[in-house]
Amino acid sequence: MNALIETLRAIVGEPHCLVADADKAPYLTDWRGRYTGTASAVVLPADTAEVSAVVRACADAGCAIVPQGGNTGLCGGATPLAGSAAVVVNLSRLRRVRRVDPANNAIVVEAGVTLVAVQAAAEEADRLFPLSLASEGSCEVGGFISTNAGGVQVLRYGNARELVLGLEVVLPDGQIWDGLRALRKDNTGYDLKQLFIGAEGTLGIVTAASLKLFPRLRASATAWLAIADPAAAVDLLGRLRAVAGDRVTAFELVSRQSLDLVLQHIPGARDPLADAYPWYVLVELTDTRIDAGLEELLEEEVGQGVDAGLILDGTIAASTTQAAALWALRENISEAQKREGVSIKHDISVPVSEIPRFIALAGERLEAAYPGLRIVCFGHLGDGNLHYNQSRPVKGENSAFIERTAEVNRIVHGLAAELGGSISAEHGIGQLKRDILMFYKPPIELEMMKILKRAFDPEGRMNPGKLL
Amino acid sequence: MNALIETLRAIVGEPHCLVADADKAPYLTDWRGRYTGTASAVVLPADTAEVSAVVRACADAGCAIVPQGGNTGLCGGATPLAGSAAVVVNLSRLRRVRRVDPANNAIVVEAGVTLVAVQAAAEEADRLFPLSLASEGSCEVGGFISTNAGGVQVLRYGNARELVLGLEVVLPDGQIWDGLRALRKDNTGYDLKQLFIGAEGTLGIVTAASLKLFPRLRASATAWLAIADPAAAVDLLGRLRAVAGDRVTAFELVSRQSLDLVLQHIPGARDPLADAYPWYVLVELTDTRIDAGLEELLEEEVGQGVDAGLILDGTIAASTTQAAALWALRENISEAQKREGVSIKHDISVPVSEIPRFIALAGERLEAAYPGLRIVCFGHLGDGNLHYNQSRPVKGENSAFIERTAEVNRIVHGLAAELGGSISAEHGIGQLKRDILMFYKPPIELEMMKILKRAFDPEGRMNPGKLL
Repeated sequence: MNALIETLRAIVGEPHCLVADADKAPYLTDWRGRYTGTASAVVLPADTAEVSAVVRACADAGCAIVPQGGNTGLCGGATPLAGSAAVVVNLSRLRRVRRVDPANNAIVVEAGVTLVAVQAAAEEADRLFPLSLASEGSCEVGGFISTNAGGVQVLRYGNARELVLGLEVVLPDGQIWDGLRALRKDNTGYDLKQLFIGAEGTLGIVTAASLKLFPRLRASATAWLAIADPAAAVDLLGRLRAVAGDRVTAFELVSRQSLDLVLQHIPGARDPLADAYPWYVLVELTDTRIDAGLEELLEEEVGQGVDAGLILDGTIAASTTQAAALWALRENISEAQKREGVSIKHDISVPVSEIPRFIALAGERLEAAYPGLRIVCFGHLGDGNLHYNQSRPVKGENSAFIERTAEVNRIVHGLAAELGGSISAEHGIGQLKRDILMFYKPPIELEMMKILKRAFDPEGRMNPGKLL
Repeated sequence: MNALIETLRAIVGEPHCLVADADKAPYLTDWRGRYTGTASAVVLPADTAEVSAVVRACADAGCAIVPQGGNTGLCGGATPLAGSAAVVVNLSRLRRVRRVDPANNAIVVEAGVTLVAVQAAAEEADRLFPLSLASEGSCEVGGFISTNAGGVQVLRYGNARELVLGLEVVLPDGQIWDGLRALRKDNTGYDLKQLFIGAEGTLGIVTAASLKLFPRLRASATAWLAIADPAAAVDLLGRLRAVAGDRVTAFELVSRQSLDLVLQHIPGARDPLADAYPWYVLVELTDTRIDAGLEELLEEEVGQGVDAGLILDGTIAASTTQAAALWALRENISEAQKREGVSIKHDISVPVSEIPRFIALAGERLEAAYPGLRIVCFGHLGDGNLHYNQSRPVKGENSAFIERTAEVNRIVHGLAAELGGSISAEHGIGQLKRDILMFYKPPIELEMMKILKRAFDPEGRMNPGKLL
């Protein structure tokens, strides 16, 4: 091991090869503080060549590797296991924007560039990079690609996968694959980049990416609408998209319980409507045209939704400040929940058409098993993706409830599976959901995944203990 | 072999297991008539279970399999090799639309459903399936997925790959993988469906697919614009998308030579403009809103293009009939070329920003090597994809020229590669471009492709001699 560390030091330079416990510590705990692991060293290479040399040295020494970016993942995917002697390869020093090509609507960025920096580089070229997440200030290109990140714009622009034109990857043996194409069409064999997107660093290390850019959005309109139930939300989404098409950029569902937590815990938050309603949707329309008439369109559609009995009340933001206040109600749900106390969290997806059934059945089954429990339900309805969290409303009872996480998970995940859904819509698997994945993933799919893993990482040295 | 044929007959029924030469013949020649192969049998299973049984029987007998759909491919990918004893598995009897879910914008169709039938089923549910190709009346789901088909809507909706939510696949050992999900978000491991999209049947047989649907388009505006050169086209596309965003559904480039062939060979075709110009673009805007104001938007943008010196002349269709006439000029180029005689054809892509350089340099290099040759250049400029074809204008000289295909290819493909492009943007590889692929594909990518092939089809029985 000492020989390996000497080699790593020679490759990245002594200041970038951390071996002292205090130096390594910040890289060995995940963002949520749920996992703490161990590592022989944390190395921070400066460029792709150094990543390649590091990976080759680890391969020669038979040493495991944990790739890491901004370390903002929610499932412990970038944290080494406890007792591990792996080398953590942190990509944060690969920070170059290599190329911006506005005429081709493409940008090439290195793995350590933060998401906000990608957005800023796009904007500088009068373009939009649409991916947007709570952690965008810290999360990095390599990480959002390796976790196929989602966020609030998926309905319109897709997940990270849909935004990738090409990748540069260091393979488990240290070879560099330069797949940094910027083509919209290329039918010359297997689409190799797909292997590494969402693979959580288990097949190689993403060192750079060629990403899609889009025209900038110059108009938006935002509404907060009260509805009777989730079925009304699905109906409303269908009607709205039929007319407004891709102008519908966000369509978020918020339960009253979610709003109540925000009103209670977030200073300055206020209910935009005079009365209380059981459910809300936050709708955003956007357009590239400045004079797109979005407010009029939204007013008309809201009027028709009211006439059809789908919308009970609502407000359309009259300014960007008002729109931001409506968005803050949605975006502060996680923070408000945190202040309220711990809860059992889920990140499930089902077909959009099954959302009402999921919410009804999950509610029934949970209430039957745990009478009086509190459900905080919100999320990206347009993508069929709900954040669906449970706790006891009385704080003293909560720690006992949390101990039953596995049972609660079984009800929620079991129903998602029943309805053709996913146990992890956007957060990935990492360490957190590996056992759950083994339970719900059909054996044939686990086998196909293992075939891929064995084919590209036969020694199992890439991010061991994650995903598979 | 006789034992295998007996088994196949028992699986699919005698009328669907073809062994007589006359019965097999229609399935052994590709659509262009370029390749004719041989096969022990052509079987037409009725459903996925039969496909699975057929594949398992072939696996037991160590017999190769050639999957086939509507047999409209342009590269011989669905035609067995000459001298082959493979079994052709034609999927055309798998014709069920299994499920339409408008609220989830998804449809599940079997491999043998034609593209027009998918479009029709979507329309019946008041939705759009946007994929659109010249061969849409005959090409089938399994084929357009296995070739990752493109067409005229890629700029707005992406290739076939982007339209797939899930797949059902029969693996080389006969196992059925039911990956027919209809989720927008599912981050539970490797995205296995990507393996089979564009794989040309070399890793398994696609038997059904879950596909994305979109809101129907209810307004469109079409313009035929004369421009000085391809750089003006790229500039114009950028300006137009900045304002009109995804309303820009098609942006096709047409050279004067291409138009001349259409005017010469297609009865009723006429030049929409009074004077002749070197280049044209055909632009289509669409919208889900009936009252989208697309004509006004297009007029305004064309006016600004004229003011900026980018547009030399043009016409905006005043009716759907006029729009269809403009589209016919573009769509009849292939037919007009065919009537003119043979030519050396290319289907290349480069970054959109490199299109002007590609056209300039390729023209120079070809003219230097073959003075006076005729270049017919047209295609999906918005996707960086050109159909770029060469012939001698004097017919008597053409057959000698065609013999130099390999040299001409080297100039055209070499330049595409130089500019970061692809030698096959949308038609795939099949038999036609296998050797060319071996030449241009970086060794590391060929090796990664082979790793995948060996992992999933270790005996190399799936569509041998294609792609790899």
